[in-house]
This record gives sequence, C-alpha cells and structure tokens, in this order.
Amino acid sequence: MTTQRVTVVEKILNANDQLAAQNKARLDAAGIFSINIMASPGAGKTSVILNTIKALMPDIRLGVIEGDTAPVTIDADKVTAAGMPAVQINTGGDCHLDAAMIKDALNQLPLESLDIIIIENVGNLVCPAAWDLGTHANVLIASIPEGDDKPYKYPNIYRGLDVLILNKMDLLPYINFNTDYFKQGVEMLNPGLITFPVSCKTGEGLSAWADWLKSHLKRKG
Amino acid sequence: MTTQRVTVVEKILNANDQLAAQNKARLDAAGIFSINIMASPGAGKTSVILNTIKALMPDIRLGVIEGDTAPVTIDADKVTAAGMPAVQINTGGDCHLDAAMIKDALNQLPLESLDIIIIENVGNLVCPAAWDLGTHANVLIASIPEGDDKPYKYPNIYRGLDVLILNKMDLLPYINFNTDYFKQGVEMLNPGLITFPVSCKTGEGLSAWADWLKSHLKRKG
Repeated sequence: MTTQRVTVVEKILNANDQLAAQNKARLDAAGIFSINIMASPGAGKTSVILNTIKALMPDIRLGVIEGDTAPVTIDADKVTAAGMPAVQINTGGDCHLDAAMIKDALNQLPLESLDIIIIENVGNLVCPAAWDLGTHANVLIASIPEGDDKPYKYPNIYRGLDVLILNKMDLLPYINFNTDYFKQGVEMLNPGLITFPVSCKTGEGLSAWADWLKSHLKRKG
Repeated sequence: MTTQRVTVVEKILNANDQLAAQNKARLDAAGIFSINIMASPGAGKTSVILNTIKALMPDIRLGVIEGDTAPVTIDADKVTAAGMPAVQINTGGDCHLDAAMIKDALNQLPLESLDIIIIENVGNLVCPAAWDLGTHANVLIASIPEGDDKPYKYPNIYRGLDVLILNKMDLLPYINFNTDYFKQGVEMLNPGLITFPVSCKTGEGLSAWADWLKSHLKRKG
C-alpha cells in the first residue's frame, strides 16, 4: 500500500509541475514578475503585502492572490481596501496552494494592467515547500517571535527560497532570539540567501525589500 | 482521478482511527493521561512542556513524544535534560503525526512508570487537526504575536480542541492583539472551550494549567 501511495503522489506532483510551467509562461508573456510568499501562521504575510503595495503604488500595480483554508476574506478585503485587485482561494481545509488553483486565480485578475503578482500561500512551514506554483521567486517571511531555531526544524522550506524576509524586528528587545544562530542555520541550508530584516510596525527595512522587487520588474518604463 | 484519490485518503484515515483507538486502550490500561499538543511553529510548545515538567515533578512523571519534520533533536534533548524520558519522531518532511507513529513511540517509553504522556505534534495549524492519535485531550497553543484572527483563518483545528493555551501573554503590550475579537472567534467554533492565558517568560497562568493536568490524572495517589 505504501508503494501505491507514493506512485499516486508522484503523478499529482508531475501534473502540478506541468501546470506551474504553464502559469510561468503566461506570467512571462504578460510581463509580470510574480512571487510566492510562504510563512508560518501569523508571521505577517498580509502586513508585508500591504506595506509593499504602499511602497510601490501608484507607479507599480500589484495583484494579490490570497490562499486561505477557510472561506474568510479578511486578508483579501484588506488588499482590496488598499486599492489593488485581489482574488481569494479557499482551499477547503487543504494545507497548501497548488498550480491548478493559481491557474484559476490568474483567470480572475486583469493581467494586462499588472506589474507584479504576489501570492500569499496558506500559513504553513511544511507543505507549501513541495508545490511549485510557477512564480519567479519563492519568498519566506520568518518572524522574531517564532524563534531562532526554525531553519533547523523546517529545513525543506528554507532550501527552496530565493528571498527571506525576517519580520517583527521591533520585538527583538523583548525576545530571546539569537540572530547569529538563526543566520547560521539559514546559511547551512541556502548559502548566500538574500535576507531583508524588516518591521511592519516601524517601517524598518521595507524600502530595501521594495527596491529588490522594483529591480525585478519585467516591464521597464 | 479525484474520486480515486478521496477513496485512498479515506482508507488511510480509517486505518489511522483504528490504530488511534488501540493507542488509547493501551494508555488507559497503563493508567496514563495523554495529550496531543498542536501549534503553529514557534508558538512555544517546547517551552510550555518544559514548564509543565517543572511544575509537576518530582511527584508526577511525564514522558514526551517529540514530532519533528527533520532529524533534529533540539526539543527532545531539552526534555531529556529536564529529567524526563523523550522519544523523537522524525516524520521525514511529513506535516503531521499519525497514530502509527505514536504506536511505535509508545513502545520506546517506560509506560509502567509514567503518569502523563505529552505529544508535541509538528508545528502546523492545518494538517494535524485531521489525525486522531488516540490521546485523551487535544490541546492547542496559540500565541499573542500570531495575531487575533487565527481562529477565523484556521477554524478546523479550533473545532477539535479540548483545551486552548494562549501563550506569550507578556508580549501583549507590544502587539496589536484584540483579546475580545480572538475570544469571539474561539467561542463561535468551540463554545465554552477551557482556555489558559500563560507566559513561559513570567510564569503567568502556568500553575492553573498544571492544576488542570493534575485533575485529569488516572493513577490517583
């Protein structure tokens, strides 16, 4: 039975990878730079996205795809209120987004008028790592209160990253977080990983992150 | 293909439930009270467990089963250092513990000399909710920095709880956390849920939690 199960999972992954490649081709054709934001629940995905919108608008237009396990539109409503188009995916309890869900969501966004698409994955440090969505960069938001040992405990998600955002830097004085130990864990799994320490409360580091995004725009000028 | 997949998953869940029932019968026969601690990564599962050991020892003996997605023994080492037997389960990247893993772990613990077994599940607010381990109580550790909207976004895990621990109360002054909004979300999903606000930093609330555990001991006197 174990072998049977592995075979089925492999087939699903292959189908996902094919759809992910189609998503990427579609985003490339539309001149859109896209990122897949992953994080533990409550690390600050939506806060970073709202601050990113604020830093880039009105010149750069962002679309957001919000992944949630339940039919709540809390995050999508915030993005819409910030003036950008958002699509909500309710996974119905599933623990990650997949490429088929993103394909459907792209159909609901005005691709011709967007420069960047940000996908907010389901809050989960384990499952999303295995599913390619067809985006150009995988971004993890870690946060100070989660603790400095997370790279050691959740290595798979760190291995596949293009960018790491370390959020809630404002809480550093109140928490026993060893920055060197954290960095050492990250470096071991993903040498030279681009890292932005930020705080959505104080604004620290957010312009450096916005500059990184700007430098990856596909439609210049 | 969808139907095929659902059938396979249902069979696995049924097998899990049968093993869970066997685990519970075995724990009952040994006079052990057991809990399944679930949480988002970094909510403070290990800190709560270490404080619980401190509050209950030497009169009450705890065994701990540590679930990790990687072969790191950071948490198991801390429990062993605190003087209690610990078994580590490495899920090999899997996102939750299941009853078969617990069955194996129970074989490695000195059941005859334990009063309580605490299982620390993989840090994940989605997947563990669906897997009965055969324990007597499901406990969630939420934490202040995760935000007040988590019950609304991860309802499934809240629905199956027997106890909620709200950790990191010491960070409340530094974080925009609306306690009423949080409580309202919990009450909607799980009316009357027993809740312990605690801080592993200041010690607040931990004795009330330890008293709850003591009141559920199966071997009295």
